[in-house]
Amino acid sequence: MTTRGFTSDNASGAHPDVLAALVAAAEGHAPSYGADDVTTALEERAREVFGPATSTFPVFNGTGANVVGLTALLHRWDAVVTSEHAHLATDESTAPQLVGGMAVLSLPAPAGKLTPAGVAELLAGHDGSVHHARPAVLSLTQSTELGTVYTTAELAALVGVARDHGLAVHVDGARLANAAARLGTSLAALTSDVGVDVVSFGATKNGALFGDAVVVLDPALAEPVARLRKATTQLASKMRFVSAQLLALLTDDLWRTTAARANAAADHLAQRLREELGIEPAYAVEANAVFLPVPPAAVPAVVAELPVLPWDRRTGLLRAVCSFDTTEDDVESLVAGLARLLG
Amino acid sequence: MTTRGFTSDNASGAHPDVLAALVAAAEGHAPSYGADDVTTALEERAREVFGPATSTFPVFNGTGANVVGLTALLHRWDAVVTSEHAHLATDESTAPQLVGGMAVLSLPAPAGKLTPAGVAELLAGHDGSVHHARPAVLSLTQSTELGTVYTTAELAALVGVARDHGLAVHVDGARLANAAARLGTSLAALTSDVGVDVVSFGATKNGALFGDAVVVLDPALAEPVARLRKATTQLASKMRFVSAQLLALLTDDLWRTTAARANAAADHLAQRLREELGIEPAYAVEANAVFLPVPPAAVPAVVAELPVLPWDRRTGLLRAVCSFDTTEDDVESLVAGLARLLG
Amino acid sequence: MTTRGFTSDNASGAHPDVLAALVAAAEGHAPSYGADDVTTALEERAREVFGPATSTFPVFNGTGANVVGLTALLHRWDAVVTSEHAHLATDESTAPQLVGGMAVLSLPAPAGKLTPAGVAELLAGHDGSVHHARPAVLSLTQSTELGTVYTTAELAALVGVARDHGLAVHVDGARLANAAARLGTSLAALTSDVGVDVVSFGATKNGALFGDAVVVLDPALAEPVARLRKATTQLASKMRFVSAQLLALLTDDLWRTTAARANAAADHLAQRLREELGIEPAYAVEANAVFLPVPPAAVPAVVAELPVLPWDRRTGLLRAVCSFDTTEDDVESLVAGLARLLG
Amino acid sequence: MTTRGFTSDNASGAHPDVLAALVAAAEGHAPSYGADDVTTALEERAREVFGPATSTFPVFNGTGANVVGLTALLHRWDAVVTSEHAHLATDESTAPQLVGGMAVLSLPAPAGKLTPAGVAELLAGHDGSVHHARPAVLSLTQSTELGTVYTTAELAALVGVARDHGLAVHVDGARLANAAARLGTSLAALTSDVGVDVVSFGATKNGALFGDAVVVLDPALAEPVARLRKATTQLASKMRFVSAQLLALLTDDLWRTTAARANAAADHLAQRLREELGIEPAYAVEANAVFLPVPPAAVPAVVAELPVLPWDRRTGLLRAVCSFDTTEDDVESLVAGLARLLG
Repeated sequence: MTTRGFTSDNASGAHPDVLAALVAAAEGHAPSYGADDVTTALEERAREVFGPATSTFPVFNGTGANVVGLTALLHRWDAVVTSEHAHLATDESTAPQLVGGMAVLSLPAPAGKLTPAGVAELLAGHDGSVHHARPAVLSLTQSTELGTVYTTAELAALVGVARDHGLAVHVDGARLANAAARLGTSLAALTSDVGVDVVSFGATKNGALFGDAVVVLDPALAEPVARLRKATTQLASKMRFVSAQLLALLTDDLWRTTAARANAAADHLAQRLREELGIEPAYAVEANAVFLPVPPAAVPAVVAELPVLPWDRRTGLLRAVCSFDTTEDDVESLVAGLARLLG
Repeated sequence: MTTRGFTSDNASGAHPDVLAALVAAAEGHAPSYGADDVTTALEERAREVFGPATSTFPVFNGTGANVVGLTALLHRWDAVVTSEHAHLATDESTAPQLVGGMAVLSLPAPAGKLTPAGVAELLAGHDGSVHHARPAVLSLTQSTELGTVYTTAELAALVGVARDHGLAVHVDGARLANAAARLGTSLAALTSDVGVDVVSFGATKNGALFGDAVVVLDPALAEPVARLRKATTQLASKMRFVSAQLLALLTDDLWRTTAARANAAADHLAQRLREELGIEPAYAVEANAVFLPVPPAAVPAVVAELPVLPWDRRTGLLRAVCSFDTTEDDVESLVAGLARLLG
Repeated sequence: MTTRGFTSDNASGAHPDVLAALVAAAEGHAPSYGADDVTTALEERAREVFGPATSTFPVFNGTGANVVGLTALLHRWDAVVTSEHAHLATDESTAPQLVGGMAVLSLPAPAGKLTPAGVAELLAGHDGSVHHARPAVLSLTQSTELGTVYTTAELAALVGVARDHGLAVHVDGARLANAAARLGTSLAALTSDVGVDVVSFGATKNGALFGDAVVVLDPALAEPVARLRKATTQLASKMRFVSAQLLALLTDDLWRTTAARANAAADHLAQRLREELGIEPAYAVEANAVFLPVPPAAVPAVVAELPVLPWDRRTGLLRAVCSFDTTEDDVESLVAGLARLLG
Repeated sequence: MTTRGFTSDNASGAHPDVLAALVAAAEGHAPSYGADDVTTALEERAREVFGPATSTFPVFNGTGANVVGLTALLHRWDAVVTSEHAHLATDESTAPQLVGGMAVLSLPAPAGKLTPAGVAELLAGHDGSVHHARPAVLSLTQSTELGTVYTTAELAALVGVARDHGLAVHVDGARLANAAARLGTSLAALTSDVGVDVVSFGATKNGALFGDAVVVLDPALAEPVARLRKATTQLASKMRFVSAQLLALLTDDLWRTTAARANAAADHLAQRLREELGIEPAYAVEANAVFLPVPPAAVPAVVAELPVLPWDRRTGLLRAVCSFDTTEDDVESLVAGLARLLG
């Protein structure tokens, strides 16, 4: 596939500014393992963005960020509470268990979003005995795996429930930028301001070549995260190459520009689907993904010819994810293809 | 530090050809998780280099490569036998234990090299009972952590001992290129030709920005490695960016050019140390590292002013590692600095 | 509590025959770690009971048996499919994850019993990609945590679904004896005869002081189980003391006598609850447990005064489990207490 | 083997008082998981013996005790420092790694005893960086695997070194009773009085049928140990049966009586070996084990005919361990056998 597709935002390439920052960082020698100037600059910038108590730990990918951040929050006998759709619960093989030794308690999440009532009910049902893995962290994905977004009020309510039961809060922010861009908020407004402890801050899906960061908002977790990053294989020796990309995205809020473009493309796609095919997305289009209900029988032909992902072949649900570089032509081409195949 | 130093080859930047390949790969969209053309090309090229049965699995770093490759070779009750100087035994925090659950049995290794007699003695002492972690893999570092190189005959002898006792063989090849460049052999001559099962093939220290590969020479291990790469957090979504770098290094044997330059710089440094300071390296200089014995009292001043690593502060041993871009001026500058501080 | 209660069958003591066997085994010296005559006799007897290909590995407890047996069936990237009520999923803290590194995929199970359709649907939804923990074992609890029993036909259907999708089958048989006693079948009829691979065969809840066994029906798993038993801390040095108890239970089918008594007591309790209080058990009483729906407001007083377990305080569900030594008086005393408190 | 042998003290049976306590505890029902009266009594008695801040957690065996106790003291990135002869380092398969994720750093230990200088040198060589597993616990075996005993002064010196470097201290006390009996001290004198944090207190080798205890002297570790005991599969449901044995051994210091008898038998054996065969034990006989140097060529015949363990077939070292019930006749019979075979 050489054209821009919609299977995932990790099929996109690199934003020119990110690539330029990477190339610039490649010049000459620099101290390894994060003692370089670029990483220092990233750490400073992240404190501006997420708050003055922030520590930033670049890692290689989102699964790594989740495992490092969550493991720092969990005792060996603890469980993480999350959505049944969470990447953590469905798309990270056994990494949470094998590396982190954690139990994953997944809850129903309509349109990808956990509800305070659902979380509270699960937690109320735990009696604290040694027999059960102890819920110790609530992990929220923002924006969600189904392309929806928690409002700040919704986040605050969920954090409140977690705190009431003594749980810490982790945000899987592989697409946090898309949520902030949609809501028009800062990144802090969705994390530090509402009491989140640790964030997996994604760059890979938003214009980077690779790399994410464990953003630590509780200073007591800085050393555990630093040590776990190494012990889980996620410490880059030439760290400047991860840091440079993250710094580029945080500079002049490039993250917002790229995420907003992807969001807008998704909006446009949803609108054109309604107009041309009468298809209403299965979930509210609040980030950069559109979930299209189609006849199950049509799925094989569609995924064979068009760059979309078969999300659920049995019910006939496709996923189309827009990237920072998705164009109107890309959208029109997809809509035309769908019209041809579904018409 | 903006000049080229000697603390480690991971302080170096990117070779221009590797960087160019990375930039080229950044254009446009491509399937994720290794279904892209660049990764396919890498796989093909690796079969030419390592042999037709080779499977290649790009990962993020050397610790990841070691953990993935070794875990694929080990049952949960098994141990890996390696050198007391092995990166695996000393520099990977608890990753081998936490992620891989493996016991690491480390042996004395004069000048970094395991001896067939030493390995045989350890293995002869194991009775196969369930009480002991069962030695199942021999892991050799080539070139070694002390800058020495196993000859093909030495490798064959060690592999022979391993096979006699039913062990598989892994090579930690973070600097395999340096060994092959020194010996004037192919990469296959040091791996597939002598019966190695799995190689951690390093790129990061030899001109790449990040990334190594688990090179699987026993086809039965391909699926385990593929699945463990994900379960250990080492699967890159935009894999083309790892693959492009590895492919650039394997193209026209760039790996040999870069490694040979680093080796030559180390030779030159050793010669100049002898000439100017009368310092004889602690170990034979067979790859790209020089270990310098100096008075322990001098270590603090030297490492404060010069870009070398204090390998052992108590005995007064420094490490100077050369990179693909180390110049004669860099060497002369270091020698002059040492002359000044040690004189 | 010095009287016989109903909170759990692990509140009961030891059957006199089991205790006598233990005392007899305590005489004199014997080889450790299973090389003793009692363990040999147990192995022989187990082959008569479960089939000629059986290997038997005594362990300390049910969680240990489950973790050892399942881990032997699972690659590090695999998942076990089980009921949402399974002990494995709810009552073993993080042992499956921490020790076994396994993902646990739990399914709705009406009255504690998995359905072939439910299992098939979950398995059909897995595409075999490396991203998802791969379902590799189906774990059935027989009798179930809700006091119900799978018929041999139901077992065969579930095993068939598992086999169709390439899964192995494990039975958590902490109360397997109760199921066989209820159905009037042999233990083999519920395990080896229907194609089960590994059984956690419980003794603790059925008259033993401690100890269960990993009963291995697939000979290829014997060595993995032997080695995992040690690597998971479940190998007893003075193994004769576990083996003697298991052998006592398998001798003259004492297991059936004890289990049948517990089952009969549960039947009697259910009948008396209907007669005296008009309470219909929440689930069919097919083993030795009765689940009593009561007004939630009554739960605190009941559990404060009577030896029953609050299974779900919110919905008002109590659990009363009968043991091999539960008497009619015990039942009448409980019924009278309930009548007083609920009346 | 029906006679009393010397292969290990875990070949012995049960002391009559321990067995009687077990039988007494088997009567009737009791709350499970440690809420019973026997366990309460054990906890009280242990506070008298080890000090008022003691918490006691019965477990199934010594490997379990070590893994639970050590894991409670270790972060996931930490290492335990111990002797190269430690059970932990040599005889627990991969349990420390698989269950605890810990790195084990083993040191030379002449005659089984770590030296303060050796420990200090290893710790001085660690720079605290994230690259290395961080030494966090010193684990001492008392009495040692080679039948020797640390004096209280030696213990204090080792604990001092550990404290100076910020390490906690664990004692593998599978044979702690033998050490205290030899030294004529209390158990507290060897543990709480010198600043030990956690003890694996052994019963199995000293007259019990099975069972040891994690004795927690630092109250902050009580909850971690309680939860890890479950998460590592070491929680007994019918806990009274472990507790009763431990309580019997702590009552009227039965542990001292049994250990002293085993020690005295070892003394007698050593003396008779000197007298009759001119064999001087390889290590000082300070507990209940005698290590006999013999010609390597004689080992096969000796171990085929006599109940001793071949400790090292290559150097010709045999181990003879005495138990609480070893008689003078047993000793004479062994000496006569050796005289015949070695004569």
